[in-house]
This record gives sequence, C-alpha cells and structure tokens, in this order.
Amino acid sequence: MAREGFFITLEGGDGSGKTTVLGRVAAYLQNHSMPYLITREPGGIEIAEKIRSIILDPAHTAMDARTEALLYAASRSQHLAEVVEPALKEGLTVLCDRFVDSSLVYQGYARGLGIEEVRSINQFATGGRMPDLTFYLDVDPEVGLSRIAANQDREVNRLDLESMAFHQKVREGYRQVVESDPQRIVVLDANRPIHMVEQDIVQTLKDRILKDF
Amino acid sequence: MAREGFFITLEGGDGSGKTTVLGRVAAYLQNHSMPYLITREPGGIEIAEKIRSIILDPAHTAMDARTEALLYAASRSQHLAEVVEPALKEGLTVLCDRFVDSSLVYQGYARGLGIEEVRSINQFATGGRMPDLTFYLDVDPEVGLSRIAANQDREVNRLDLESMAFHQKVREGYRQVVESDPQRIVVLDANRPIHMVEQDIVQTLKDRILKDF
Repeated sequence: MAREGFFITLEGGDGSGKTTVLGRVAAYLQNHSMPYLITREPGGIEIAEKIRSIILDPAHTAMDARTEALLYAASRSQHLAEVVEPALKEGLTVLCDRFVDSSLVYQGYARGLGIEEVRSINQFATGGRMPDLTFYLDVDPEVGLSRIAANQDREVNRLDLESMAFHQKVREGYRQVVESDPQRIVVLDANRPIHMVEQDIVQTLKDRILKDF
Repeated sequence: MAREGFFITLEGGDGSGKTTVLGRVAAYLQNHSMPYLITREPGGIEIAEKIRSIILDPAHTAMDARTEALLYAASRSQHLAEVVEPALKEGLTVLCDRFVDSSLVYQGYARGLGIEEVRSINQFATGGRMPDLTFYLDVDPEVGLSRIAANQDREVNRLDLESMAFHQKVREGYRQVVESDPQRIVVLDANRPIHMVEQDIVQTLKDRILKDF
C-alpha cells in the first residue's frame, strides 16, 4: 500500500492572496513530481453540495447560528470521507482551501459561538483528522480590501469600510487559533508582495514535507 | 413574563406504545388546564425539514455516519430554536416525541459512533437545553414486534425476526443512557397493558410537575 499523502490546508481572510498561493504550492509540488489534489468544501460531493445549498439559501434568514455551524461540520465530514481520506490513502498530497480553522474563526470567534465549542463538533466531524501543515496568510484588512478593490478595478467603497470591523475580528480570531496550534500553522505575512510569500512557502515545504522524501 | 413551561420528552423503541402514551399525557395536561404543545423533529420547520430530507433521501447511500449524526443535530437545533424554546418561554408545557436520547442510542450506541461523542455534538446543538423529564418506555423487542404485527393485522414475519438483534441493541443503548441520567429519565415497563403504564405516568406527573403548581 502507498505511503499516506500529506494534508495541507490554506487559511486567510479576503484579499490575503489565498488563491494565488494555492496555485504556487501546486506548481511546486508538480515540479517535484509529487502527485496532488486541490479541493475545497463542498467540492462537488452531492451530499455536501446539498448541505451547503441549505446554508446559503437566502430565504433561510431564521437559521440558528448553531444549526449553521453543524451544517458546515456535516458538509466537512462528507467531503473528508469522499474526497480527502481516499486521496490521502492513495498517497496524494491534498491541498484544501479552508478547513476546520475557518469554522473556529468565523463561527466560533466572529459569530460568538466559542472557539472550543466549535472545535468539539469539528473533532467529531473529522474523526480527529487534522492537516499536517496549514499556511495562514495574515493580511492587514486595509491591505486586503485595497487588493480586492484593485482586482475589481474600483476604489475602496463605503461597504468595504463597514466590513472592516468584521475583517479585523476575523484576524483576531485567526491569531487565537494560531496560538492554540503553532506547530501545525505557519503564519505568513501576506502584506508583502506575493513572490516573497512564495519564498517562505517553498522554504517551509522543503523543511517540512520534502525532507521526508 | 410567564413562568417557563416544562419540557417533557418521550423515548422508546418500535411498538413501545409511545404514540398512545403521548395522547394520554396530553389528555392529562388538558384536564389540569396546563397549556401544552406536542411536537417532534423536524416539526414542519422549513430548514429542519430540508435537512431531514437530505438524511432520508434513499439516493444518499454514501452518507457517512458522522455526517448523518451532525445533520440530525442540526435539525434538532433549528427545531429547538424555532419551536421548543419559544413555546417554553411562553409558559407552554412542551411534549416532544424523541430528543437527544434517541441520537445517543441510535447513532451513538447502535451505529457505533460512541455515546459520549454523540452527546458532545448534541450539547452544542441544544446549547445545554435538556428535558425536565423524560419517559422511557422499555419494552421487550418480542412484545414490541408482536404489537406492530397485530396493529397491521398480520403474523410476526421473517423480517421482524431479522430486526430483533437491532432492537435488542437499541434496548441495551437506552439502558446505558438511562444509567447516565437516572434522575431525569423515568423508566416505564411498557410490556404491561397501556392503562398500567398510564397510571405510572400520572403518578410521575403529579410528583414531578403538578407539585410545583
């Protein structure tokens, strides 16, 4: 049987450059002949997609915050069972765009359900499976929002500024989550140009992943 | 503001007489001028009904046992938020046909996910809300299955007998759950004729509920 693959997740707020970085990590793995799979929940898995459509249905304004957190956890467990676990068992490196840490930050901290409470339902959902390595792209909300506006070829607007407090809260949440697991989560200063972030990532992959090959 | 209502749940396997007993409890509350609400999950709540339809869809043969348990918990938290909590706050006595204990028994014990593991996600789902009183109708699976067959005007058949092992397992699960909370859960010997079970229930309601009025 093949050696189990590495499980790598990416975390970060809006405008942190997560998508770009994902592509760079993929290119690096490709160059080193490491077969990989890029995914994100619900990932085209029928059951997980149906769960997600309940969460996102704009008619569901009465949805309880706990219901929402449980549905995210349910979508996660199905995606894990049908996509991530089989790929890891085949020996593929799995790159997942957001995972448990996002729930801890968004539902646990920003929505106020409690990081530890949300962690407990996610431990159930994952059966204890955690990433081998997580990159957290830490960006100042002002920098992140400016990047988003620039991508959309417009100025930072009033709505961007109103959401600033929320983004600040998300950043605080990530800091708490990083503190609880500093060995797994590598914090990258994503205020810098992307090529500098990429250098850090390559160095980390060399130190943490390639050394085992 | 009205005094908060009592929260009473009924638990028990197939053929235990749960539905009949529910009617008797309701009649008793009516006779004592205690306003009440009878409900069961998903209880007509749109979000909870949609969640339940994902669980019950026969096409979803790939559903992971953890996903299923999380979906039951999500349906529960929404039903609680939209039906049970508002009714209790209005001072209604709420009679709920099955609640957390069913998940502990069916998912936790019978499906092997672990009673404590399933308890933890349900503590999250309920925000700690537990029934004031639970009636568990304990019936020998042979008696229960004979009643079901009699109701359907037929003999006990091969399928009934095949499911006997499962019903036995459910009964073992309920015994463990009862042991963990003997003050809340009143065990009734439901092998007896229903009028005898009813006498025990009335006595319990007098001792535990009406004494406070």
